[in-house]
Amino acid sequence: MIIDCHGHYTTAPQQLAAFRQQQMAGLKDKSQRPKAADLRIGDDEIRASLEGAQLKFQRERGTDVTIFSPRAAGMEHHVGDEETGAVWARVCNDLIARVCGLYPKNFIGVCQLPQVPGVPPKNCIRELERCVKELGFIGCNLNPDPSGGYWKDPPLTDKYWYPIYEKMVELDVPAMIHVSSSCNPAFHATGAHYINGDTTAFMQFITADLFKDFPRLKFVIPHGGGAVPYHWGRYRGLAQDMKLPPLSEHLMKNVFFDTCVYHYPGIELLTKVIAIDNILFASEMVGAVKGIDPETGQYFDDTKRYVDQLKSLSEENRKKIFEGNARKVYGRLDAVLKARGLN
Amino acid sequence: MIIDCHGHYTTAPQQLAAFRQQQMAGLKDKSQRPKAADLRIGDDEIRASLEGAQLKFQRERGTDVTIFSPRAAGMEHHVGDEETGAVWARVCNDLIARVCGLYPKNFIGVCQLPQVPGVPPKNCIRELERCVKELGFIGCNLNPDPSGGYWKDPPLTDKYWYPIYEKMVELDVPAMIHVSSSCNPAFHATGAHYINGDTTAFMQFITADLFKDFPRLKFVIPHGGGAVPYHWGRYRGLAQDMKLPPLSEHLMKNVFFDTCVYHYPGIELLTKVIAIDNILFASEMVGAVKGIDPETGQYFDDTKRYVDQLKSLSEENRKKIFEGNARKVYGRLDAVLKARGLN
Repeated sequence: MIIDCHGHYTTAPQQLAAFRQQQMAGLKDKSQRPKAADLRIGDDEIRASLEGAQLKFQRERGTDVTIFSPRAAGMEHHVGDEETGAVWARVCNDLIARVCGLYPKNFIGVCQLPQVPGVPPKNCIRELERCVKELGFIGCNLNPDPSGGYWKDPPLTDKYWYPIYEKMVELDVPAMIHVSSSCNPAFHATGAHYINGDTTAFMQFITADLFKDFPRLKFVIPHGGGAVPYHWGRYRGLAQDMKLPPLSEHLMKNVFFDTCVYHYPGIELLTKVIAIDNILFASEMVGAVKGIDPETGQYFDDTKRYVDQLKSLSEENRKKIFEGNARKVYGRLDAVLKARGLN
Repeated sequence: MIIDCHGHYTTAPQQLAAFRQQQMAGLKDKSQRPKAADLRIGDDEIRASLEGAQLKFQRERGTDVTIFSPRAAGMEHHVGDEETGAVWARVCNDLIARVCGLYPKNFIGVCQLPQVPGVPPKNCIRELERCVKELGFIGCNLNPDPSGGYWKDPPLTDKYWYPIYEKMVELDVPAMIHVSSSCNPAFHATGAHYINGDTTAFMQFITADLFKDFPRLKFVIPHGGGAVPYHWGRYRGLAQDMKLPPLSEHLMKNVFFDTCVYHYPGIELLTKVIAIDNILFASEMVGAVKGIDPETGQYFDDTKRYVDQLKSLSEENRKKIFEGNARKVYGRLDAVLKARGLN
């Protein structure tokens, strides 16, 4: 089985964007704020939004199940207030649940959290619990910078974040560290902010003892771990200069990278320097890069091809990347797959 | 000849730090502000600060000349005001000039600029001109985020920056894009802020037509180009989705990466995906990572070893990385080398 651990619902029917616009209009006039029940999308519209996109690519590329969450850039934690954020997360997550209901063999849900800049993330516990217990989701996306490019919240290792970590551990769900769009003109979203967010989170984890406090807490750092594998010597060296244990002990029992790296040499490097147990297959489709690479004639984000090309990878290790590691990191995944007859 | 294009004076005598402390004390009480002439450092102290460090490593590693600038983390553009910043840059640059005077065969100067958050960088023209024309420097370090981790200034492609670019072109000097220390607790300086700065700058250059306005403007993006080479497919794909010309035409006649990547697989990737003409040898010593890699028994930042290990590199290309590209990017370098009898 080939499990893609990183897919977003980037192709949702346009009613979702209209709902968001209505929310924005309601920021000035509370009477205009839409309720969750106001969003009307038919099953056929959901099917149409996926059939020509994510489902088509799954079939064409030969991947099986996608761990699927709301559009990352759409989370927009920097916009609105606690109330609009809570409704927005609920609506987006409910839509993912419907996708999973319509295509139980193709999608498994991961939720967006109603984070708000400056508001302790314990405000997200209720939605996380609802998504896991009621909707059957297996993880969440955690935004390390709800301010959208100004990095105003404390580092992920601060006690500020501990309540949500406690709940994650209790529910046995990992978080993918994923920023949303950038409202800072310095940062292009998918070209700078996303990658910087990954690099920043990893370095935050190095400089603290978070995983002593939470030995069972797990994070997936997407986009191949940002800049980290390319600079693996730098990170090993920085940790050593700080008299920390080797990274393999210090944080690599808790931190995992996905394979959203859009060329073969990048994937080759990733699998050369990072332990295979820490790498989860993912493509982020349909996502940041939509085109076909003229150098290969294939989609940039068809990352399965790059993993397939790795000749030195044993079959055992290939299976870990495609399936086994995801089953380990997402503690609830096995049970969900089994319940859906996917074993 | 082996030219290291990225070295900082991280080992300056302690009087320099004391001078800075005095400046900080003077922020509240202007009468306490030191004047440039108050900094007293003897030639022997400068020699002692280099002999056991940069010079020792040059000898041991077999590199010849280092393009040398003040400590990047010490620039601290986010601290102080225009006046203290101007004096601080002058003092730091004058010290580099003395280093170059004492060791003309080992060091060539690059200057720190007196940038101030929110102050247009045209305020730096005078110091740049002084350093190039009077001190014989061949480039400058340009901080894309003088706010020190809050990214409050406009992107590098904004007309805000054009006056300094005009002067750079007129003087035929490139800038290394280099942030300083981070006052944002989200960003570790050398592990996150530095690398993010590199990635961010590259993406800013992609999304504009800066090099149509300045076809002769040149930038070195240090630390191996941040995350860029590892995600080269992403950047090619993003540019293609935006209907931009190939990166080789769009910006790679103006943007160069150094080799400050502290493990062999990283350097291998860099030289595999980035055109050799765009890669300049550098080690950043004595800098971000000071230790010895237990996996190799050699210093992490002894990047010459990694380049030496590249078996597929032709001698012609090796010479480009070690010497030829630096001579092209730093337009004044040939003349300076010649004047010092280094040809």
